[in-house]
Amino acid sequence: MFDNTDEYYMREALKEAKKGFDADEIPVGAIIVCNDTIIARAYNNTEKLKDVTAHAEMLAFTSATSTIGGKYLQNCTLYVTLEPCIMCAGAAAWTQIGRIVYGASDQKKGFSKISTNILHPKTKVTKGILVDECETIIKQFFNQKRKY
Amino acid sequence: MFDNTDEYYMREALKEAKKGFDADEIPVGAIIVCNDTIIARAYNNTEKLKDVTAHAEMLAFTSATSTIGGKYLQNCTLYVTLEPCIMCAGAAAWTQIGRIVYGASDQKKGFSKISTNILHPKTKVTKGILVDECETIIKQFFNQKRKY
Repeated sequence: MFDNTDEYYMREALKEAKKGFDADEIPVGAIIVCNDTIIARAYNNTEKLKDVTAHAEMLAFTSATSTIGGKYLQNCTLYVTLEPCIMCAGAAAWTQIGRIVYGASDQKKGFSKISTNILHPKTKVTKGILVDECETIIKQFFNQKRKY
Repeated sequence: MFDNTDEYYMREALKEAKKGFDADEIPVGAIIVCNDTIIARAYNNTEKLKDVTAHAEMLAFTSATSTIGGKYLQNCTLYVTLEPCIMCAGAAAWTQIGRIVYGASDQKKGFSKISTNILHPKTKVTKGILVDECETIIKQFFNQKRKY
């Protein structure tokens, strides 16, 4: 059901999440792929930027559209380690992104808890890619925080 | 029911929308007020930045948190000429903004069409301030576009 390509790119998103972990950010990573090329990479940067809108996906969308010089991402795929929140799903809808692949589900803040209709009607969604790794890095982050 | 303060600040948001109009952007303006001081002003900038996430509200949130040096806007009010979309409402939730005041409703893309639960539970909402002016500027923009 899942091909290796999705796992390959999700590992790239996990590398971004790891950078977030090392920077003491909630470790969520995202990449955007277009024609088998990674055109944007980002990790959550809300602490450094003191900006709650600086989620990995938002930064990746802005970076990707800057790279391709256009506003829309119909032929692109977002790989993100955690299910997008409502803000990021709303942003994804505006980009008309072709596909979203995410790892871990977000039981509290995931967009699918409100409505899957938030996304653009043509956006395909695949979830659960490398789910264990994607969940583990977040659990490790919060477990470490609780020790202090 | 509506006091003059809301009208005063909505006129400031309309000034931003007018700047957007003059810059050939969909004319939506936003300001953020904290302790009777305007701490952020922005208008929709999606065309210039080629970035569909560059809505007036998103730019205003980032500017406001940068100004106050913190991530949260509990004591602030967002004045925006058009009802926020889902992305912007989701962002507003992350900021925990105290109050949102908007002018025109957005029948197609407004967050309230999906769910009013998108906002933070403590965020108060007032709508319909200077609704005629807020609707008119957008209608003028699209009427002008149709002529070409």
